[in-house]
Amino acid sequence: MVNITTQMVQVFAIFVAFLALGFAAWLYAWVKSQPSSNARIAEIGEYIRRGANTFLKREYLVLARFTAVAAVLIFVLLPHPLWAENADITKNIWMTVSYIFGTVLSALAGKIGIQIATIANIKSAEAAQKGIKPSFMTGFRGGAVMGMAVVGTSLLGIAVVLMLVGDATSVLGFSFGASSLALFAKAGGGIFTKTADISADLVGKVELGIPEDDPRNPAVIADNVGDNVGDVAGMGADLFDSNVASMAAALVMATALGGIAGKNVIMVFAYAAVGLLSSIIGVATARIGKNGDPSKALNSSTYVTTAVYAVLTALATFLFGFEWRIWGATAVGLIVGTVIGITSDYFTNDNKPPVQEVAKASKSGPAFTILSGFSYGLLSCLPALIGIALSALLAFKICSPLGVAIGQEAEYGMFGISMSALGMLSIVGMIISNDAYGPIVDNARGLAEMGGFGEKVIAITDELDSAGNTVKAVTKGFSISAAGLTVISLLGAFMSEVNTAARELGIIAAGESFIKNFDIMDPTVFFGLIIGVAIPAIFSAMLMLGVDKNAQRMVAEIHRQFDTIPGLKEGKEGVKPDYDKCIDIATSGALKELIPAGLVAILATIAVGFIGGARAIGGYLTGNIASGLLLALLMSNSGGTWDNAKKYVEAGNCGGKGSTAHKSAVVGDTVGDPFKDTAGPSINTQITVVSLVSSLLAVIFLQLSIF
Amino acid sequence: MVNITTQMVQVFAIFVAFLALGFAAWLYAWVKSQPSSNARIAEIGEYIRRGANTFLKREYLVLARFTAVAAVLIFVLLPHPLWAENADITKNIWMTVSYIFGTVLSALAGKIGIQIATIANIKSAEAAQKGIKPSFMTGFRGGAVMGMAVVGTSLLGIAVVLMLVGDATSVLGFSFGASSLALFAKAGGGIFTKTADISADLVGKVELGIPEDDPRNPAVIADNVGDNVGDVAGMGADLFDSNVASMAAALVMATALGGIAGKNVIMVFAYAAVGLLSSIIGVATARIGKNGDPSKALNSSTYVTTAVYAVLTALATFLFGFEWRIWGATAVGLIVGTVIGITSDYFTNDNKPPVQEVAKASKSGPAFTILSGFSYGLLSCLPALIGIALSALLAFKICSPLGVAIGQEAEYGMFGISMSALGMLSIVGMIISNDAYGPIVDNARGLAEMGGFGEKVIAITDELDSAGNTVKAVTKGFSISAAGLTVISLLGAFMSEVNTAARELGIIAAGESFIKNFDIMDPTVFFGLIIGVAIPAIFSAMLMLGVDKNAQRMVAEIHRQFDTIPGLKEGKEGVKPDYDKCIDIATSGALKELIPAGLVAILATIAVGFIGGARAIGGYLTGNIASGLLLALLMSNSGGTWDNAKKYVEAGNCGGKGSTAHKSAVVGDTVGDPFKDTAGPSINTQITVVSLVSSLLAVIFLQLSIF
Repeated sequence: MVNITTQMVQVFAIFVAFLALGFAAWLYAWVKSQPSSNARIAEIGEYIRRGANTFLKREYLVLARFTAVAAVLIFVLLPHPLWAENADITKNIWMTVSYIFGTVLSALAGKIGIQIATIANIKSAEAAQKGIKPSFMTGFRGGAVMGMAVVGTSLLGIAVVLMLVGDATSVLGFSFGASSLALFAKAGGGIFTKTADISADLVGKVELGIPEDDPRNPAVIADNVGDNVGDVAGMGADLFDSNVASMAAALVMATALGGIAGKNVIMVFAYAAVGLLSSIIGVATARIGKNGDPSKALNSSTYVTTAVYAVLTALATFLFGFEWRIWGATAVGLIVGTVIGITSDYFTNDNKPPVQEVAKASKSGPAFTILSGFSYGLLSCLPALIGIALSALLAFKICSPLGVAIGQEAEYGMFGISMSALGMLSIVGMIISNDAYGPIVDNARGLAEMGGFGEKVIAITDELDSAGNTVKAVTKGFSISAAGLTVISLLGAFMSEVNTAARELGIIAAGESFIKNFDIMDPTVFFGLIIGVAIPAIFSAMLMLGVDKNAQRMVAEIHRQFDTIPGLKEGKEGVKPDYDKCIDIATSGALKELIPAGLVAILATIAVGFIGGARAIGGYLTGNIASGLLLALLMSNSGGTWDNAKKYVEAGNCGGKGSTAHKSAVVGDTVGDPFKDTAGPSINTQITVVSLVSSLLAVIFLQLSIF
Repeated sequence: MVNITTQMVQVFAIFVAFLALGFAAWLYAWVKSQPSSNARIAEIGEYIRRGANTFLKREYLVLARFTAVAAVLIFVLLPHPLWAENADITKNIWMTVSYIFGTVLSALAGKIGIQIATIANIKSAEAAQKGIKPSFMTGFRGGAVMGMAVVGTSLLGIAVVLMLVGDATSVLGFSFGASSLALFAKAGGGIFTKTADISADLVGKVELGIPEDDPRNPAVIADNVGDNVGDVAGMGADLFDSNVASMAAALVMATALGGIAGKNVIMVFAYAAVGLLSSIIGVATARIGKNGDPSKALNSSTYVTTAVYAVLTALATFLFGFEWRIWGATAVGLIVGTVIGITSDYFTNDNKPPVQEVAKASKSGPAFTILSGFSYGLLSCLPALIGIALSALLAFKICSPLGVAIGQEAEYGMFGISMSALGMLSIVGMIISNDAYGPIVDNARGLAEMGGFGEKVIAITDELDSAGNTVKAVTKGFSISAAGLTVISLLGAFMSEVNTAARELGIIAAGESFIKNFDIMDPTVFFGLIIGVAIPAIFSAMLMLGVDKNAQRMVAEIHRQFDTIPGLKEGKEGVKPDYDKCIDIATSGALKELIPAGLVAILATIAVGFIGGARAIGGYLTGNIASGLLLALLMSNSGGTWDNAKKYVEAGNCGGKGSTAHKSAVVGDTVGDPFKDTAGPSINTQITVVSLVSSLLAVIFLQLSIF
């Protein structure tokens, strides 16, 4: 057994983080060095790059103002209000700095993603002329830049904050910074991308019958920009946030169980660093045969990462004498995560009955597409929910024999749950790589179409794109489930924060607990629970109404352009639509709608805290998870089912393109778009933000509440 | 102050119940004595009556077999397994008898409803020739027969069971009988009615452009039968169940707080009897002017009932020296129920923005109808959830100063919540009357159309029908919320059953509690909670897929008839479609699909109980309420919004009939049909059944469970 200290493991984590960042830089250089020569797609690629950067800049300006206001509030209030007896201004400064640091790193993750994605899309399109292998590698390595950069910076950030500040509460502040930015970035990007996507499809494909990505369509560039700002930047910020939140929750529990210098904190860092290392290995070893199957290549590198992680953590546990039971909890998370991924695939894969049934039902009209897809979406929640429930129960039962921290409410069972979430997210570097691969090859497909590369090349990019969709469905199930487990441990973190605060305020004596449980039969807890149920519903409704309104505006604009620009519809040489106008509509709409939805979630949390105090918040977080998981799974999966049902029909089944089934399936896909790409995945972040706000404001709720 | 005993109040309750039944008989005779002369509608009316009775008979045969199996299981297992040491065969016999009694009375409620509804529809159609007033009164009094009969029998049943058996657990058995029948009746009727409705509209209105209720349509009779078996019989069984469950929960708590002879039991009966009395007064005084507004007439009789109830319960409280605090809790339920009704109306009324926005969005295509209607449905959950949360919190806080039963876990706060639910349901007689009025006048409209009564008469029945839809939306919000509150008190009842059982089994000493709370942080509770979240989703998905599949079969059959019966499409004299074939498809389909969905919910409960024991069940019930309330409100309200958006467009807005907006709105309405009439309202019953199963099996879960 080798003895290590917190300092040593933190240095190791920082080293691995830099390794990942270095690897990202190498991959970036590699992608950039790939040949590109076609002037037409260089021009269009430039349009996309400029559109994405403009949106990002305007979005970050809005968010910078929000961050500034939040930073002032945090400085005044957290961890203790400046006017309180036990206030320590240094602590408040550190908290504020941690918060800002979190927002900056999260924004950076998005920016890096856009940077590489808008290069890799061009390179991947060009490479497709040479075959599937080079095109796949370009797309995949482009995505991996994002994966390595996001996980590298998140691990680096947490290690630095904990080293400098030295308490776990500041990590919560850092995590809140990351989450609040992710919340708005995800919502804004999600509204942008679906506004453009729906409008482009509706007028282009449905009304005029012109192909997808046809350069005559005024919304076509906006659509491609959307892939980048929604799926790349938004998703990056989102997974940055999930990763940080799961580490933060584990660190709070670990600290409560034995202090900053204790073995548990060491273990959290060791496991996180090993997870990143495994992802590096998985990415570095990813290969595809000359005519290989891209889905298989993506999945097999995921499995490599998983296996490497299991082996390396076991090795670390053996070497450093960590508890095997906690390793077991991590393994449970990893296994359950994989099983959830596979079952999600069942409901969204077009080789399986659900998608085919939805396609068949579409023959009777769009109402049947919606009803059957929605129903399968509801059914699809079951395996993931069982998985989450079981892994929480098993992780707890495996670890609880390790005992309870003396004089504290913290216990190893709860820590086990947070480590199980960490296990599920351990391979997040790999997940992000796969996720970012999707929009890159989607864009490459568009560029190949617009550049006139011909049928054969487009077919290659189509295959790459379709693999991206399949893998995306799997990783989404994975990340929603991990968020569910993280939030349970954040509930533990919240209780721990409340009790610490109650001791500091002298409300209870040292060694006592202010809150020992959140009893459902306590009407204050129940009150919070029922309100918590409503929040994800309101939040997603607001986002979808945003897309709905925005898309109606953009559809009107596309009609205007086709009606007033002579020769556009006919594709006359030299006639170009006004792409920028569409990008501008999507941008302004997204910026207008992104703040209110997120703010409602945050303000509702504060309101519940003031009405019912810490107990009500316990219930509120529970209700929020319950309804959030349900809605997130339902929306993501039914959206995926509709998308693939459309593709299944387009592949010539149930009447093929142009049939009633096809028209119905397009309606399903249009409904599914904001379900799966705007509302569904944003709920994830909403749950995390609300949990973090609660933990941070625990002290305030303790002092001021009506009931 | 007047002293009364439990016997006295039970006799009073039985007296009021008979009063209600006598009033129902008088109303029935009145409706029957109304003139009818038209041979054509008598013939069609006879078709409908026969179809409805045939379905009911076949459905009851299936349910009788289920009931027989369940009765044997109950006899062997409940309240104690026959092989257990403390088993008492007499108790098991009483439990079985109570259960069977519950199923029989519930079935009877459905049968009575069909009986009157299939007469009142003809009479109301005929009366419409003389004006709105006689037609309204016929429809309303027809509905009131159902209202009086249902509430009368439920009060009678509970009073008799408690008098004969003398313990509250048997009341749970009675309630389970009512609920399990309601679960299947509601599901079966819901699948039948929407199969027929969707198919008739899709082929008739959408494809062929023939009017609604056109006698050429082979599914037209099935559609009218559906109104009766789904909305009348199913709804009757459902509200019979809600009413019984809320009383059962209150009685279990009341008994725990002071025994069968205690003042609390007296109060429950007194309030329930007064509620029925108020409904009798409300129905008896209902009036409409010669050209009056039927919605106003319906709502004003609801308000009369509410006011009379508030005054009479206050009087009873004063006279018999009940606790004013408990009266307060009841009043909270009553007020919140009214507020929830009004806010539900906002989201489904075509004079208000949500419906109009959905209609406007429909101009861009069906996907936008679905997206916006679904989003408003999500938003509409907020007021009802806040209402439920607040009334639980307030009722508890008002009553908890009354204290805790000595040596018991029962407390007045929890009893307050159950009384608040009782308050919300106090006017259930009135609610059922209004609810049953809807399908009666809907049928009358169909008969007027088929009988060729001309535009003017159809316009009158249209107005009556539309009032029925508006009122229905309000009463649905009311009954879902009441079910939410009831289930909280059933959670209390469950805990009380577990502790009583633990004492009887000698697991704990007298005066101790086996379970003091359901702690969310306990992973067993959390495990149950997450599984509980999944159940309403699975349940409603199964029902909707049932409708979906069934409707596809029926659409094929309608096409077949139009294609193969010469002269049918053209409406040639003497050519009739084969109505019976369509009725048969709807019947067989409904009977095939109604058992599995309900059984899944019951079996999942048992599985969770065996895995995690009583604690897991506590979480499970909570998760079930959380997701059940969300889905029920979402589905009922978005369905209502779509329905009225279609009507709004048909009234000439957004392009009117035949426009793009209209076609899109029809898609929305078709999706909304099974949402609001099959899945949404069935979830209610599912929640109650699962709670009752848990309470009844508490003893078994206590002895056998893995974790």
